[in-house]
Amino acid sequence: MNAMADEAGGDVLDEAWFAARACAGVRGLKAYDPGHDLVAFRRRFAGSAGGHPLVELGSNENPYGPSDAARAAILDQLQAIHRYPDPLGGDLKRALAARHGVAPERILLGNGSHELLMLLGQVFAGPGLDVVFARHAFAVFALATQAAGARMRIAEPLPRDAAMPLGHDLDALAAAITADTRLLYVANPNNPTGTWFGADALAAFLARVPREVIVVVDEAYAEMADAPDYASALGLLDAHPNVVVTRTFSKAYGLAGLRCGYLIGASGLVAVMERLRESFNVNGLALAACEAALGDEAHLRSACARNAEQRDGLSRALRERGLDVFPSQTNFVLVGFGRDAAPIERALTDRGVILRPMGGYGLPDCLRISVGNPDENRRLLAALDEVLA
Amino acid sequence: MNAMADEAGGDVLDEAWFAARACAGVRGLKAYDPGHDLVAFRRRFAGSAGGHPLVELGSNENPYGPSDAARAAILDQLQAIHRYPDPLGGDLKRALAARHGVAPERILLGNGSHELLMLLGQVFAGPGLDVVFARHAFAVFALATQAAGARMRIAEPLPRDAAMPLGHDLDALAAAITADTRLLYVANPNNPTGTWFGADALAAFLARVPREVIVVVDEAYAEMADAPDYASALGLLDAHPNVVVTRTFSKAYGLAGLRCGYLIGASGLVAVMERLRESFNVNGLALAACEAALGDEAHLRSACARNAEQRDGLSRALRERGLDVFPSQTNFVLVGFGRDAAPIERALTDRGVILRPMGGYGLPDCLRISVGNPDENRRLLAALDEVLA
Repeated sequence: MNAMADEAGGDVLDEAWFAARACAGVRGLKAYDPGHDLVAFRRRFAGSAGGHPLVELGSNENPYGPSDAARAAILDQLQAIHRYPDPLGGDLKRALAARHGVAPERILLGNGSHELLMLLGQVFAGPGLDVVFARHAFAVFALATQAAGARMRIAEPLPRDAAMPLGHDLDALAAAITADTRLLYVANPNNPTGTWFGADALAAFLARVPREVIVVVDEAYAEMADAPDYASALGLLDAHPNVVVTRTFSKAYGLAGLRCGYLIGASGLVAVMERLRESFNVNGLALAACEAALGDEAHLRSACARNAEQRDGLSRALRERGLDVFPSQTNFVLVGFGRDAAPIERALTDRGVILRPMGGYGLPDCLRISVGNPDENRRLLAALDEVLA
Repeated sequence: MNAMADEAGGDVLDEAWFAARACAGVRGLKAYDPGHDLVAFRRRFAGSAGGHPLVELGSNENPYGPSDAARAAILDQLQAIHRYPDPLGGDLKRALAARHGVAPERILLGNGSHELLMLLGQVFAGPGLDVVFARHAFAVFALATQAAGARMRIAEPLPRDAAMPLGHDLDALAAAITADTRLLYVANPNNPTGTWFGADALAAFLARVPREVIVVVDEAYAEMADAPDYASALGLLDAHPNVVVTRTFSKAYGLAGLRCGYLIGASGLVAVMERLRESFNVNGLALAACEAALGDEAHLRSACARNAEQRDGLSRALRERGLDVFPSQTNFVLVGFGRDAAPIERALTDRGVILRPMGGYGLPDCLRISVGNPDENRRLLAALDEVLA
């Protein structure tokens, strides 16, 4: 041992050395690429001649912010910030349970729904197993699958000329299930397409999925969906104990910076996932703020109504400019430019307008545009007119 | 498929059903047991006749709280709480890099060091591999090992009559390393014993460990250590690129509720772990508060000095009562009662004094007592005198 250790002295072991010693899933993973250094951009634009702040429409945040009750809860909780958070999350779970009409034992809290989606992969996927999801779905589905060392089985979406262009093809998803499939992710509405599927389609789909497959319905944008045919999967959980729903406080509740999401499913599934959950995974300010935010339904309704109005107006304005706007039940729209959108995105960035490029999602002709407040949407359109001119 | 799905309708799938489909590590795990429902206790005692708040000395929190600069940073950051946190954590990493004299690329941020300790297990341990750590060490070492499905190789501690009773036996740890060992956890100072090992012992130990073994030195309590022979492992990282150090803002910095810890190691190791890190794992208020807290060294020094003074006084007072107080370089003391301590702990709880029982750590005759502020320590001693009378 000594000889070996002596040799190590002063050596620099590089990424390849450590990767060779990492588990199979991590060996094949690439680190998250945030694209822009948004903090550096903010500083650059805050110091620019006009002093205009950035128009940040890249991350589907809620421009109206959280309920005042959430801010008040944070201020109140600050006096106890030296204490660990409640590892049970009891108050927030009870509030969520009351809201959704389920037992608190059916709720699992996460450091954002991102953590819960990863945990589902860690618990139920693994080498030799398949995980099914759609092309152009949330990037974390692939990350969770790869991190677990499982195989990705990717279903093609509906075609661009379908009634729901690039939407989930539930038949294709069901057909992608193999005997080795233990986990299937769908998002409704879906990110980054904004598309959705209706209640009847969901029920028919779930009836086709063997119960050996845990179906994760990611409903990060559910609160904003108001299409007559849309329905949450929450109503189907009793009939399908292999289904779980994930939700987040990052979107409609305007609390992306605090990191809190939750999962609702069978109490047995929650109990198994609790074994792996880190005991203090949700911070104390988030627990308090999210409970308070849940209590302010008027703020939620108002934010969603303003979003829907702005989404309609923005979609119309983009279509008037000849662009291809995909149907959306979220707080963003996927926009097709009919050509490589990367130069457009770069030109907008230079003008202080941040959108999300879609090359990494396999849609290089598209950009994803978050629905901002009226001022942000106006500034986006003005910059776009300059760039497209 | 239909038949199967039809059968599932209305079924309740229980924990055993889901556990049978979980990965090997999770099948053997037990969910975290928080012991008390502290939130319920707080309500009960806040409403009691005397209206006395609980004396919370169970979780090694900092009774003096964080720097005012950290609170101010939180208030300032509240206006952007609807935005996602900086996924790069750039400002905090640069502040930490400057503080510790390392490149920012050598730092990984976590949702508490708990998350980083779990991630290390997830990346570098796994079925068929061994993870080495000491008996009576931080509970998360075992959790991380079991979650990864790896084997635990537990080294016995120094005997109770040693100069450093129940301290890490570094010879035993080195001897526990096998050809299948990829990860070794030590804590210095150690939780729950409070013990530590000196700089020379650490250097000699690291020289014996093959570089194939990643050595994790958990220094959650390092800022509070002032023994002349104590030294952080940070000074040995260049000579031993297989060593990583974990630190936290939960203890000396008084920010347990916010969840932020960090790891310092080889940039190659950090790059591999970045692949698995969730992009927004540290919340936005934590990033801002921890950066501000780092800048207030006077507050840190003051909190540590007050802790050391109170630790000495509390240790003396406990020894005067005939109790066995283990040496500590932390903000807690391990106390031996010479008999089953569970009834004592229960009697103290009934009086509103929360300590940490040690049965789960294999030390049923002991309790772990966090060092409180002067008032808390007085009330603890008064309650203890009642109980022991």
